[in-house]
Amino acid sequence: MCMSNLIVVGSIALDTTHFPNRESIRDVMGGTASYFTLASSFFEKTGVISIIGTDFPENYKETLEKSGANIDGIEIKDGKSFRFESKFMDNMDEREDLATEINVLGEFNPKLPEAYKDAEFIFLGNTDPEQHLSVLDQVKNPKLTAFDTIKLWIDTKLDTVMEVIKRVDIVFLNEFEVRDIFKEQNLKKAAMKCLDLGPSYIVIKKGEHGALLYGKDLHFSIPGYPLDEVVDPTGAGDSFAGGFMGWIAKTRDISEANLRKAMVYGSILASFNTQNIGPDAFKNINMLDIQNRYNDFRRIVEFE
Amino acid sequence: MCMSNLIVVGSIALDTTHFPNRESIRDVMGGTASYFTLASSFFEKTGVISIIGTDFPENYKETLEKSGANIDGIEIKDGKSFRFESKFMDNMDEREDLATEINVLGEFNPKLPEAYKDAEFIFLGNTDPEQHLSVLDQVKNPKLTAFDTIKLWIDTKLDTVMEVIKRVDIVFLNEFEVRDIFKEQNLKKAAMKCLDLGPSYIVIKKGEHGALLYGKDLHFSIPGYPLDEVVDPTGAGDSFAGGFMGWIAKTRDISEANLRKAMVYGSILASFNTQNIGPDAFKNINMLDIQNRYNDFRRIVEFE
Repeated sequence: MCMSNLIVVGSIALDTTHFPNRESIRDVMGGTASYFTLASSFFEKTGVISIIGTDFPENYKETLEKSGANIDGIEIKDGKSFRFESKFMDNMDEREDLATEINVLGEFNPKLPEAYKDAEFIFLGNTDPEQHLSVLDQVKNPKLTAFDTIKLWIDTKLDTVMEVIKRVDIVFLNEFEVRDIFKEQNLKKAAMKCLDLGPSYIVIKKGEHGALLYGKDLHFSIPGYPLDEVVDPTGAGDSFAGGFMGWIAKTRDISEANLRKAMVYGSILASFNTQNIGPDAFKNINMLDIQNRYNDFRRIVEFE
Repeated sequence: MCMSNLIVVGSIALDTTHFPNRESIRDVMGGTASYFTLASSFFEKTGVISIIGTDFPENYKETLEKSGANIDGIEIKDGKSFRFESKFMDNMDEREDLATEINVLGEFNPKLPEAYKDAEFIFLGNTDPEQHLSVLDQVKNPKLTAFDTIKLWIDTKLDTVMEVIKRVDIVFLNEFEVRDIFKEQNLKKAAMKCLDLGPSYIVIKKGEHGALLYGKDLHFSIPGYPLDEVVDPTGAGDSFAGGFMGWIAKTRDISEANLRKAMVYGSILASFNTQNIGPDAFKNINMLDIQNRYNDFRRIVEFE
């Protein structure tokens, strides 16, 4: 069993998605852990902690392994995999949730493979925050822990969400979630409220408007990469976190200068994510494409 | 009568504004030409082309002159000044228009003072686009012409708006207006549609999310300045244009490197604008404050 210095816990789903101007896709691999890993694996082998049912297609496990993931931490349980069905509205800005079947994810009690327990970089992605606490209890001496969540857990388990926030180094949220959790419309003030609870940094994702990074004495802002077309934004936030954490784990450098670079890599992976459908997002992308887009970002923001 | 190398045509209003958490303000100086000029005058003496009624308070004319404006181009007509009343919603994000009294602005037929006709830098701000065409016909040899408008003219005089767009070098619009005019949700595609009509550049203002500058082979993005509180965003777009055009007129340099700098100055003036109420926006601001915020912007976006 091989060591993983970067691990992620989060959902692996079978997604059904309906689009305004193209054919629907059915039961394709989705979920936080999948998108995170497909992105982070460009930089660092990633240990995945999740659960799937016996119905999960073999080829998707291969997709993850080929991308460079360690899937020893994926439990296979007798039953059906987590499923999510949604529909994008005409302008691709809004999305309607049609059906959520929790299935085996509801019974998930993460047990880390021994080789994962020494991981230095930990990403707690969308899943029940109780599972996040369990993972935090099992890792031995993490260097950087990061957390993300979704509206479902903010609405149903806010106390546990807050408990996790208090224990991590970086919080990733989108602008709506951050306003919702901290009951504050102003993003700067909401960010400060978050940092007051313990985390050293908060990343606020704003879709096409880019992302913000706040620390006690740090503010960094990166625009959205200018795209001609948004094909499928499913997983963009997880790809952002994957690019960010992948870069940090690869460089093992948590200086503020390197966190800024991680924000750029996060934005790049999120931008590639939205240009393709489902788990094919990164199929034709290589490190040269990533580096070219890094240089584009530099040109987009530079002034004398 | 003194020369003005930068001139602006646009409304001068008496604004009544209601806020969710503070006292209303009544009949304070507002309008495009006022906010533009208060901002641009930090950099360059600005010639104002507008119309007011005999009811317009003397002290506001003094405010404009003291800021460094040339007000020879403001016509005073027997009648009432243009008036606008609006109300901000709870989160300060949305605004409800309560009343618009066009008054003397409806009869405005701009006649440029001789000293304005040699101006090199021309800003056509919010007013009837017919008046823009008249100003363009009167200036002799402009180096850079820029244009902005609002929903009212897009809804009622789109053909004339398009005619103006075809004749200017830079178009300033907010993200909603640009989508509306060019019938295109994707901002990059909408920007390209605009440039296809003739302008060399388009600036897309996105409020707290910053602003974009597109040219045929140029893309520049600047984030919003992080503010603890938005006190009164009235005039922020006009202050943006004022900072931008003021800087360009002062430096007389229309290179792309200098347009990027102008975007930063525009953002700075817009940010100061929103931190104070009405025309007091820039009362306590000096060039050092502007320069400090310029350095802040550099730190906010920089990465290695």
